[in-house]
Amino acid sequence: MAEKVKASASSAKSVYFFGDGKAQGNAKMKELLGGKGANLAEMSKLGIRVPPGFTITTEVCTHFMNTGGKYPKGLKAEVDTALKRVEKIMPSRFGDAQNPLLFSVRSGARISMPGMMETILNIGLTSATIPGLIVKAGNERFVYDAYRRLITMYSDVVMEKAAGIEPKEGMGIRQQLESQMRKMKDDKGVKDDTDLDVDDLKKLVNIFKKKVKQVLKRDFPDDPYDQLWGAISAVFHSWNGKRAVAYRRIENIPDHWGTAVNIQTMVFGNMGDDSATGVAFTRDPATGENKFYGEFLVNAQGEDVVAGIRTPQAINAASKTEASKHLPSLEELMPGPYKQLAKIRTKLEKHYRDMQDVEFTIQDGKLFMLQTRTGKRNGTAAVAMAVEMCEEGLISKKEALLRVKPEQLDELLHPMLDPKSEKTAEKLARGLPAGPGGAIGQIVFTADDADAWAKKGKQVILVRDETSPEDVHGMRAAQAILTAKGGMTSHAALVARGWGKCCIVGCGALNINARSKVLSVNGKKLREGDWVSLNGTRGVVYEGTVGLTPADPTKNVHYKKLMSWADKFRKLGIRTNADDPKDAKLARSFGAEGIGLTRTEHMFFGPDRIRAMREMILADDEVGRKKALKKLLPLQRKDFIGIFKAMNGLPVTIRTLDPPLHEFLPNDLTSQKEMAKQMGVSVEAIKAKVQSLHELNPMLGHRGCRLGITYPEITATQVQAIMEAACRVAKQGVKVYPEIMIPLIGTKAELENQRKLAVDTAKAVIARTGIRVKYLVGTMIEIPRAAITADKIAEVADFFSFGTNDLTQMTFGYSRDDAGKFLPDYLSKKILPAEPFQTLDQEGVGQLVKMGIERGRAGRPGLKIGICGEHGGDPKSIEFCHKVKMNYVSCSPYRVPIARLAAAQAAVK
Amino acid sequence: MAEKVKASASSAKSVYFFGDGKAQGNAKMKELLGGKGANLAEMSKLGIRVPPGFTITTEVCTHFMNTGGKYPKGLKAEVDTALKRVEKIMPSRFGDAQNPLLFSVRSGARISMPGMMETILNIGLTSATIPGLIVKAGNERFVYDAYRRLITMYSDVVMEKAAGIEPKEGMGIRQQLESQMRKMKDDKGVKDDTDLDVDDLKKLVNIFKKKVKQVLKRDFPDDPYDQLWGAISAVFHSWNGKRAVAYRRIENIPDHWGTAVNIQTMVFGNMGDDSATGVAFTRDPATGENKFYGEFLVNAQGEDVVAGIRTPQAINAASKTEASKHLPSLEELMPGPYKQLAKIRTKLEKHYRDMQDVEFTIQDGKLFMLQTRTGKRNGTAAVAMAVEMCEEGLISKKEALLRVKPEQLDELLHPMLDPKSEKTAEKLARGLPAGPGGAIGQIVFTADDADAWAKKGKQVILVRDETSPEDVHGMRAAQAILTAKGGMTSHAALVARGWGKCCIVGCGALNINARSKVLSVNGKKLREGDWVSLNGTRGVVYEGTVGLTPADPTKNVHYKKLMSWADKFRKLGIRTNADDPKDAKLARSFGAEGIGLTRTEHMFFGPDRIRAMREMILADDEVGRKKALKKLLPLQRKDFIGIFKAMNGLPVTIRTLDPPLHEFLPNDLTSQKEMAKQMGVSVEAIKAKVQSLHELNPMLGHRGCRLGITYPEITATQVQAIMEAACRVAKQGVKVYPEIMIPLIGTKAELENQRKLAVDTAKAVIARTGIRVKYLVGTMIEIPRAAITADKIAEVADFFSFGTNDLTQMTFGYSRDDAGKFLPDYLSKKILPAEPFQTLDQEGVGQLVKMGIERGRAGRPGLKIGICGEHGGDPKSIEFCHKVKMNYVSCSPYRVPIARLAAAQAAVK
Repeated sequence: MAEKVKASASSAKSVYFFGDGKAQGNAKMKELLGGKGANLAEMSKLGIRVPPGFTITTEVCTHFMNTGGKYPKGLKAEVDTALKRVEKIMPSRFGDAQNPLLFSVRSGARISMPGMMETILNIGLTSATIPGLIVKAGNERFVYDAYRRLITMYSDVVMEKAAGIEPKEGMGIRQQLESQMRKMKDDKGVKDDTDLDVDDLKKLVNIFKKKVKQVLKRDFPDDPYDQLWGAISAVFHSWNGKRAVAYRRIENIPDHWGTAVNIQTMVFGNMGDDSATGVAFTRDPATGENKFYGEFLVNAQGEDVVAGIRTPQAINAASKTEASKHLPSLEELMPGPYKQLAKIRTKLEKHYRDMQDVEFTIQDGKLFMLQTRTGKRNGTAAVAMAVEMCEEGLISKKEALLRVKPEQLDELLHPMLDPKSEKTAEKLARGLPAGPGGAIGQIVFTADDADAWAKKGKQVILVRDETSPEDVHGMRAAQAILTAKGGMTSHAALVARGWGKCCIVGCGALNINARSKVLSVNGKKLREGDWVSLNGTRGVVYEGTVGLTPADPTKNVHYKKLMSWADKFRKLGIRTNADDPKDAKLARSFGAEGIGLTRTEHMFFGPDRIRAMREMILADDEVGRKKALKKLLPLQRKDFIGIFKAMNGLPVTIRTLDPPLHEFLPNDLTSQKEMAKQMGVSVEAIKAKVQSLHELNPMLGHRGCRLGITYPEITATQVQAIMEAACRVAKQGVKVYPEIMIPLIGTKAELENQRKLAVDTAKAVIARTGIRVKYLVGTMIEIPRAAITADKIAEVADFFSFGTNDLTQMTFGYSRDDAGKFLPDYLSKKILPAEPFQTLDQEGVGQLVKMGIERGRAGRPGLKIGICGEHGGDPKSIEFCHKVKMNYVSCSPYRVPIARLAAAQAAVK
Repeated sequence: MAEKVKASASSAKSVYFFGDGKAQGNAKMKELLGGKGANLAEMSKLGIRVPPGFTITTEVCTHFMNTGGKYPKGLKAEVDTALKRVEKIMPSRFGDAQNPLLFSVRSGARISMPGMMETILNIGLTSATIPGLIVKAGNERFVYDAYRRLITMYSDVVMEKAAGIEPKEGMGIRQQLESQMRKMKDDKGVKDDTDLDVDDLKKLVNIFKKKVKQVLKRDFPDDPYDQLWGAISAVFHSWNGKRAVAYRRIENIPDHWGTAVNIQTMVFGNMGDDSATGVAFTRDPATGENKFYGEFLVNAQGEDVVAGIRTPQAINAASKTEASKHLPSLEELMPGPYKQLAKIRTKLEKHYRDMQDVEFTIQDGKLFMLQTRTGKRNGTAAVAMAVEMCEEGLISKKEALLRVKPEQLDELLHPMLDPKSEKTAEKLARGLPAGPGGAIGQIVFTADDADAWAKKGKQVILVRDETSPEDVHGMRAAQAILTAKGGMTSHAALVARGWGKCCIVGCGALNINARSKVLSVNGKKLREGDWVSLNGTRGVVYEGTVGLTPADPTKNVHYKKLMSWADKFRKLGIRTNADDPKDAKLARSFGAEGIGLTRTEHMFFGPDRIRAMREMILADDEVGRKKALKKLLPLQRKDFIGIFKAMNGLPVTIRTLDPPLHEFLPNDLTSQKEMAKQMGVSVEAIKAKVQSLHELNPMLGHRGCRLGITYPEITATQVQAIMEAACRVAKQGVKVYPEIMIPLIGTKAELENQRKLAVDTAKAVIARTGIRVKYLVGTMIEIPRAAITADKIAEVADFFSFGTNDLTQMTFGYSRDDAGKFLPDYLSKKILPAEPFQTLDQEGVGQLVKMGIERGRAGRPGLKIGICGEHGGDPKSIEFCHKVKMNYVSCSPYRVPIARLAAAQAAVK
């Protein structure tokens, strides 16, 4: 049996022909033929002219890799057959002295990996075929130019690698050949390649060949088949090249996919002034506008466009830019080929039902299409195209919703650095893109400075090693936050994301001396007040100021339409995590249907509150604590009044105190002394309290409901503030739906205890005020035990809200603050498929979530269930929340639109 | 319907008569009648003479509590009926002036709560009945003595409580009355109560009555029924008394059980020299020997025996002690009643099939039994009785196994403080009994001192605030460990328990100044070198030296027999956690069938190893780490050789490195400086490394397999050491079964990674040595995610071992080191039924364990599964392990016998 399977595998078809209006493949065969090959076949079938050729499948690549570089048995014969068919079409022959055929050999994986693998052009040029081609092309210089390009590419891509040489950076054969060419130009006193004449190039190819022999100890192959098979093997090898492997790691592309190889007849855009080469998009990829957009170069090969030596020209008036407006367009220069191209544009878009990114070459006035693929686009363009294509009848609403990656909406919500001025700006360093958008400001090194400068009307960027809850006022005041340490879920990242604030974390190159207020980075020194610009979407820090472009999605009609469609399709409710009226309003403007999480602890860090909070912590008994809590009560009530008003008519979930008490006390002696002075107690007393509250593993310590059970007066005061606020605004006509949420529940008895306390307090407030406000008491499910015993807990819970941050921490046994030490290793070694704090681990944590939902609803049918961890704003995780039948997700305000779209996509899928 | 149920509940029988060879209840009705009432009924039915009386049920108590002190409707009538029946038997009448009947009123709960609730004697003595009783008893002094006792007890127990007075400690009515009596004796110049004559007592009762009226504002009741109902109500109230509630908390007795009330005819052991009162055990409760054992007092009431004013006499020659040997025995003094008593002894033991603890009174030469219950016994006695009763044919082997509490075996394994000299020793403080047994030694304050003193042949007790891994050498050297902080699962407790070392932790009264080497405790100051004695079984610290009694269970034939029976019945294998050959041998001598956990990290703390370990940690790259590991390799190999030899023929599970690396570096500057000097590096370098390794939540940080994945060379070196050791001893003929265990696995990919590393390394060693040693590679299941995804993990695991310490931490989200801040609160508020680190939480953590087992065996049928957390030595948890079909439990050496018995009990149940 095993034998048979093997035999049948090796007898599978390995080569797929395309050309002349026919093809053995089609656009759906991307897995086998790669994206490029599949689309070449499809275009050929559509009657679009492509240079004929054939594709060797990705299965051959897999075989090649698994066997240490061997080909399946029948491959050569299949290649020969396909090659013959191409020769017949052209008609010309590979290696023929009179009428030679040249090939390009290109990689083509299932999805595009731009620049990651190899391409070799002009395969088939040998001492035997050169004369014939000269006659055929009527252009000797062109042929020698093609030959020196072949030698350069081939010696680099095929021969150097085959020789097993790993030259130092910038010392490879390619660079050595290029330096010979530069020398020749210098000797001649000319500047451009085009200034070298036929004789120069003839000399040069001889110099090149000698150099190749000298460095690589091998003659440059003069047999066309040697060249062809060398190139094929080089492409397969390049799948496991360093760059390609690194790219796959980042993009999560499996190693076993492999690449196909496309062998295609050469067409030349550099045959003279009737020839050209270019790229085009069927719509504008930057704006989404329905206009044909592209650029080209006359008398050039593809690599010249990429090299950027000459300024590309616009294909039409609509594509002209500042740089190209004085140059004639393709439409003007070659109206015939342009018209054909424009027709092809319409055909392709109609056929593929999406914007296409195409490559073309015009040889002697004849248009050839070299590639088509679905074009990349930015967020604004994605939204515009999706909506317009739907309205044009090209796609359905469901398809339109699936056309936009939810994360792309981010671009519509945040001001961005101006892409053009970003290109020329001085890059300082790169970090993790923790908070999207752009920001410009003067650097400061402490939260207090940030606060003080901002109050003076200055724009500041807060630069810290790491941030802590004590920095929150400064973080709020700053335009953006930049830290040297921490990951995507560090304190800075979480807070910034919550506020939709630009933020870059883990920027390791920064060397911060907060005391002397100096930032050293890559040999540069920046001081307090120096200007920097941050691209938080990409994680890049620039020196000086880069222009900003503002954002206002509510003015974007496409966005509004797409969102309205999303709301129609989605089943999940979308709430927001918001701790103050400002965020609540913002989220509401983004479409939030309630608050899923109001953290009350942030409210205690304000300068007017922290003192009372600390008094409570320092108090030795209940009496002392109650006295301090009495001071906090009116402040909390005020906070809640503001939030309830902002969310008039919508539910507001408020979580009781969660963090351990030591987070509210200063750790450094200076601050402790200051606190002692302010509060009129001894430093020793403060130190002693800090010491007594110290925990080895605070994440697993005395926090959450454990505080409320030890100190019932804390829960009671908070519930009193919530209910008094609710009754007060209800009296004013505000529709208020408070939902009291108890954190860190692990047992039913805990929730019973806190629920009784909450209900007793609420009843007392209602009795006192005479205003009947309906309220719920529910719990976070964030401890594995809570998910496991959800049936029991549900008996005393009005709702569940999954806190998947903590649940992930405890299910994996990872401390979010410490996992940075090994998570990068885990991702690079593929031990984890994704960062579990960003994307919910469905295999493990997800099972607990499912269990929690099923058991919870078994314990209380119809139980309302949501999520309020970071995952509530992550599209993949939102899809999971939809599947497991949650009622809503809650996320930070700026992720509300993303969540709306992701929820709709989940429903549509 | 509800009405009906209520009616039927209140019409239930509330009063159960007993006496005159008859009874309405029996021994099985403990829930309803309490232990005392049920057994009085049973004895009466057996034809044993008990003073006739009746029992009011525990249901009445529940009703009384639920209704705020009301009785069910028919109660009074039922009491009257029962009372009439008693009067008829006696014959005499309650309150009758000529022939008065007196009652005792006693509590009696389902299980004995010694001294926790109330007893009132001589109920029915009034001004009307006193003269009649004087005539009847022929002893005026006796009657007035009984009356003053009644006033004292009744005013204290009934009247003071009913008045709602809560006097200060030592200022209650009882103390005030007793002080009056003392005054009278002082005035008279006499010492004993018996020195007061009739006239004195007559005067005294008048003084008492006046005092009662003055203090409690009420006359002493002179109506017998007032006295009776007052006493009944006081007994019911005492169920919710402070002492009783506190006792129930500790013993985990539910509040709703309630107590019964026993109203029983008074018999008097103080009627003269033909009267006596005593207690006896049907076998010796201290040794288990099959001899009748007891003591008594002539002419005394029960409370005199308890008060310890007179030296009790032995009931027979076998019971005589140093203190009582010169006094005549009951057998000698009253041969008739003694013979009856001895007959009753045989009858009761045969009937109850267990050792009985009885109370008796002889009134005018007539024997009455007042109580029988199953007697408490110490561990040695429990074992001896179980085995002997089985051999006598009284009970089956299964019953014998169930007769011994597994924890009681502890007493047979550890030397103990001599109970007699313990009684008179000076108690210093009380802490948590973390390591059982007794120890005597001179106190030292540092691990180094402990080590140094021990090397000089001194016996030391290491006294620390808390211990850390750096103290381990000193802990090993010390006789015992005493800490001021920490709980039952603190570092000190775990290490000590592992070694079977005496240990007391969390002894909060200790004030330790390690620098000046002074220990202050309750006003006393102890200095280095002062002697203390520790009772680790009870958690008591004494000043000075208390005698020790040694332990050697292997010489105990009863123990050996019981264990052999246990081994026959149990299904679970029993392994041990042992880190060195000494522990391995010890555990083997206790019956361990293999090692379930060898922690390799303890091996790195020895002075010869810690340096190489630190070199490895300080190394910046793999080369440096490998160099340092090379130094550790031979040392580790030596360790393993010793263990393998000790366990010849049995499996040995070795866990690769688990703790975070920072545990191996010193935290204080002094030690850091010393380390810098020793290793020839700068203090800054060490500080920097300590800083870089610092973790906010080390429990959830870079440890376990995460280290082995980041630094594969660590795992590789350890596996190399294991396999080289295994091959070497195998060559010498030792049968070796190494099981390599990877800790902290959360995903299949992690185990795949480490397994490959282990297998590759093992194969290389086998190839090099040419010796084929079979080995297994398995994993700890200690992370919730591992249990959830056990099916996948099992695919690459040869075995599972549940690490329920960590699993409990993560499932609950409790840090073992920090939970001390709230767990006591949780236990006292009944939010948790038990300390989850001591007894496995079956409801939550247990579900994960079950899931892990079921899924694990689904992934790999027949998968071998064990447990090696602390719970592996806890009897309740062992029962769970049996139920969920584990293959073995592994525990510290001293718990191996306990585990064997617990496993047998689980199988027998």
